[in-house]
Amino acid sequence: MSARADKLMTMSQAPDNAVRQYIEQHRAAFLDDLAEWLRIPSVSAQPDHAADVRRSADWLAAKLRETGFPTVEVWATPGAPAVFAEWPADDPAAPTVLVYGHHDVQPAAREDGWDTDPFEPVVRGNRLHARGAADDKGQVFFHTLGVRAHLATTGRTAPAVHLKMLVEGEEESGSIHFRSLVEEHVDRLAADAVIVSDTGMWAEDTPTVCTGMRGLAECEIQFHGPDQDIHSGSFGGAVPNPATAVARLVAALHDEHARVTIPGFYDGVTALTDHERELLAELPFDEEQWLRTAKSYATHGETGHTTLERVWTRPTAEVNGIGGGYQGPGSKTIVPASAMVKLSFRLVAGQDPDHIEKIVRDWTATRVPPGIRYEITFAAATRPCLTPLDHPALQSVVRAMSRAFDKPVRYTREGGSGPAADLQDVLGAPVLFLGISVPSDGWHAPNEKVEIDLLLRGVETTAYLWGDLAGSWRDES
Amino acid sequence: MSARADKLMTMSQAPDNAVRQYIEQHRAAFLDDLAEWLRIPSVSAQPDHAADVRRSADWLAAKLRETGFPTVEVWATPGAPAVFAEWPADDPAAPTVLVYGHHDVQPAAREDGWDTDPFEPVVRGNRLHARGAADDKGQVFFHTLGVRAHLATTGRTAPAVHLKMLVEGEEESGSIHFRSLVEEHVDRLAADAVIVSDTGMWAEDTPTVCTGMRGLAECEIQFHGPDQDIHSGSFGGAVPNPATAVARLVAALHDEHARVTIPGFYDGVTALTDHERELLAELPFDEEQWLRTAKSYATHGETGHTTLERVWTRPTAEVNGIGGGYQGPGSKTIVPASAMVKLSFRLVAGQDPDHIEKIVRDWTATRVPPGIRYEITFAAATRPCLTPLDHPALQSVVRAMSRAFDKPVRYTREGGSGPAADLQDVLGAPVLFLGISVPSDGWHAPNEKVEIDLLLRGVETTAYLWGDLAGSWRDES
Repeated sequence: MSARADKLMTMSQAPDNAVRQYIEQHRAAFLDDLAEWLRIPSVSAQPDHAADVRRSADWLAAKLRETGFPTVEVWATPGAPAVFAEWPADDPAAPTVLVYGHHDVQPAAREDGWDTDPFEPVVRGNRLHARGAADDKGQVFFHTLGVRAHLATTGRTAPAVHLKMLVEGEEESGSIHFRSLVEEHVDRLAADAVIVSDTGMWAEDTPTVCTGMRGLAECEIQFHGPDQDIHSGSFGGAVPNPATAVARLVAALHDEHARVTIPGFYDGVTALTDHERELLAELPFDEEQWLRTAKSYATHGETGHTTLERVWTRPTAEVNGIGGGYQGPGSKTIVPASAMVKLSFRLVAGQDPDHIEKIVRDWTATRVPPGIRYEITFAAATRPCLTPLDHPALQSVVRAMSRAFDKPVRYTREGGSGPAADLQDVLGAPVLFLGISVPSDGWHAPNEKVEIDLLLRGVETTAYLWGDLAGSWRDES
Repeated sequence: MSARADKLMTMSQAPDNAVRQYIEQHRAAFLDDLAEWLRIPSVSAQPDHAADVRRSADWLAAKLRETGFPTVEVWATPGAPAVFAEWPADDPAAPTVLVYGHHDVQPAAREDGWDTDPFEPVVRGNRLHARGAADDKGQVFFHTLGVRAHLATTGRTAPAVHLKMLVEGEEESGSIHFRSLVEEHVDRLAADAVIVSDTGMWAEDTPTVCTGMRGLAECEIQFHGPDQDIHSGSFGGAVPNPATAVARLVAALHDEHARVTIPGFYDGVTALTDHERELLAELPFDEEQWLRTAKSYATHGETGHTTLERVWTRPTAEVNGIGGGYQGPGSKTIVPASAMVKLSFRLVAGQDPDHIEKIVRDWTATRVPPGIRYEITFAAATRPCLTPLDHPALQSVVRAMSRAFDKPVRYTREGGSGPAADLQDVLGAPVLFLGISVPSDGWHAPNEKVEIDLLLRGVETTAYLWGDLAGSWRDES
């Protein structure tokens, strides 16, 4: 153990005035740089912004070189380029951490309801408004000042961990080349832990770390009845109706406790421990407020679980779309030729998407009425990811964040699913989530913003994190 | 009873050589005239054919005058015009019969798959091909030669019944002004019986009369969940999904015997008598052939009923359309904001559309889950119609048809619903169906045709019908 490491190990969780001072000194330049990046409209979903997305990658690559990363590369994909950067620790035994984020942004136009040009950053009070301010340029960017603060305040010339960054350019258009990119560069990306900075915290006054995301399996089921729409007067009541059959399939998905009825669906799902339920219950949850955010008029879900447990820790079967027959104005008296349903299954740790696909196929096959032909197709699945609460890297994130925010850090999970799972799968590394965005930041919405105070807490968190992580990892191994 | 009526009453059911000879003599001119009418592309659904529809009405009016109708009028509607004709009987006590048909046709274009120009009639063997040959110009037109044969072979100068004709011009575009037209002219249209010539027979070698049509009630039910589509990862599993709720509503529509579960749905429906079931069973029904016509792969319907009973004599609840959420290619992980279903209910004699609307509304209201808001809207309903088997006018049609076809006439019903019900409702008269079209005639399809032999049997049927009807009616009253 080096002297520096020893010093870090014994460091209290109190904030570090040197770190705060460093950040304060560099705050203006940091925000100016971020604003410059935000001016590049790197909208990956719009082909006419392809050059901007490349410019965004090049800009970030240059900035990471300027930050000190000795290796910075722009990786081409069949779509938008990603940026890879690597900064080895002095200690060859130090753990390797891969930071994930993305440099592309959602589409935005003034006429969508923006008060100012979405690609001309504006500071109003503590808020920096621009498309990508929170999702995800701001959260990628806090790592640049964070690692410099880490070095400056510890006297290091290299980070305490082998630090890698992978910043993709297609997250807002489905990350369609991401998994193959990771597979292609699996050796370069190898890491002991992945830190994803593309999420958020519970609330401004409630710093949290996310410990997992749900997985996702998706399918479309087509039911075919007559070879074409037929007259409901001439034939109705005497042939099977595929729309009725699809409806009966969907209706059978859940029992009266809103549990999914497909045999084997809950295989491998472990119940929450009392401790985990207590940790979730510690969050200041206001169900009325949550319903307003959900734009919904009632909660509804699996009996015996709270709303947060339902969206974060329980698997679901959800109808994303249903359709068949005549949907235009007025009426058309037909027995439709076909009907379909698009289902998605959110999965939690312990569930295997391949198993889910198999049991959904089996279950569907047994529920197709005579005279109905069917097809079922599955999209590529996303695995769930969950980091154990006692994982040393997770505890390092919690400690670093707690120091930066001067507050206890609570635990959340994410109900959605993301490319983080590809990193977990391909690299075989646990995924941790370090995000400082808050629900009001308006991801994908007009007037997206980031809270500047929180952004700087993100800088501060990473300034503490690498040393803590190097120490705790060594402690464990 | 006049001498003429007496003679008719004692007439056997044997065909009349004088009638056949008269028809044979006028056959060529009759077919030439029909071809001239068929050349007018009276497509009511296409605004650029509006002048053709008016021309068709004028053409028919002139031909009815030429036939001998002393009163012929073209009745304007806010849409296409109808033709009304009236020819009083000499005997003021004679019953009044209103013949219904339509002079507009479905759209047709060579490129839809026609072997020849759809508006240039072609005779191939026993078939006359043209749009409208069977639906409905041919079937309207056989009444012109029929009444002339009736007069010529009985020495009459006026028909044995007060004969009225109403030939509308909007049947193929929904008869949207028909009911108000009938209401407006209710006194002029008053009749003891309505004869609809816009249907068909079971098969070329199986002459049949249709004794009723099903009615129709239609509604659309909208279920609203979140105010907009929301993320199924962030919220899925914890809020009610309107697509699931619509599916559960639809699934609850039928029980395991395919009976409609809505309380009160079967109120007023009387079971078929053994005699009625026997009459239906007399039809040479081939279920495999029926399935091919239905382009379906299995029969399915109410337990305890045959396929023909299901489509002709039993009420149904059918999904005509269902939709909600994302239906495009690929997937979209949302809880949809809304979902809807379009339902139609075929009704049989004894069911009241107003009652159906009420019980569907009540049933839906009890099945909307918490957090879902809903709307239900009903379209204008069509009442069922059914003529008792022992009705004297029906028995006259059966006798006349049996003489013309040299065969026993069997009974069918029609599973669909039509403007005939408006005539029944507004005029308070029983509706009878006299049609000579066969399933292969290709209504609404390319290469529509009419079998010339059958068309002339239609002429012959009406040549016998008016005398028989005048006699049997007098007999009854």
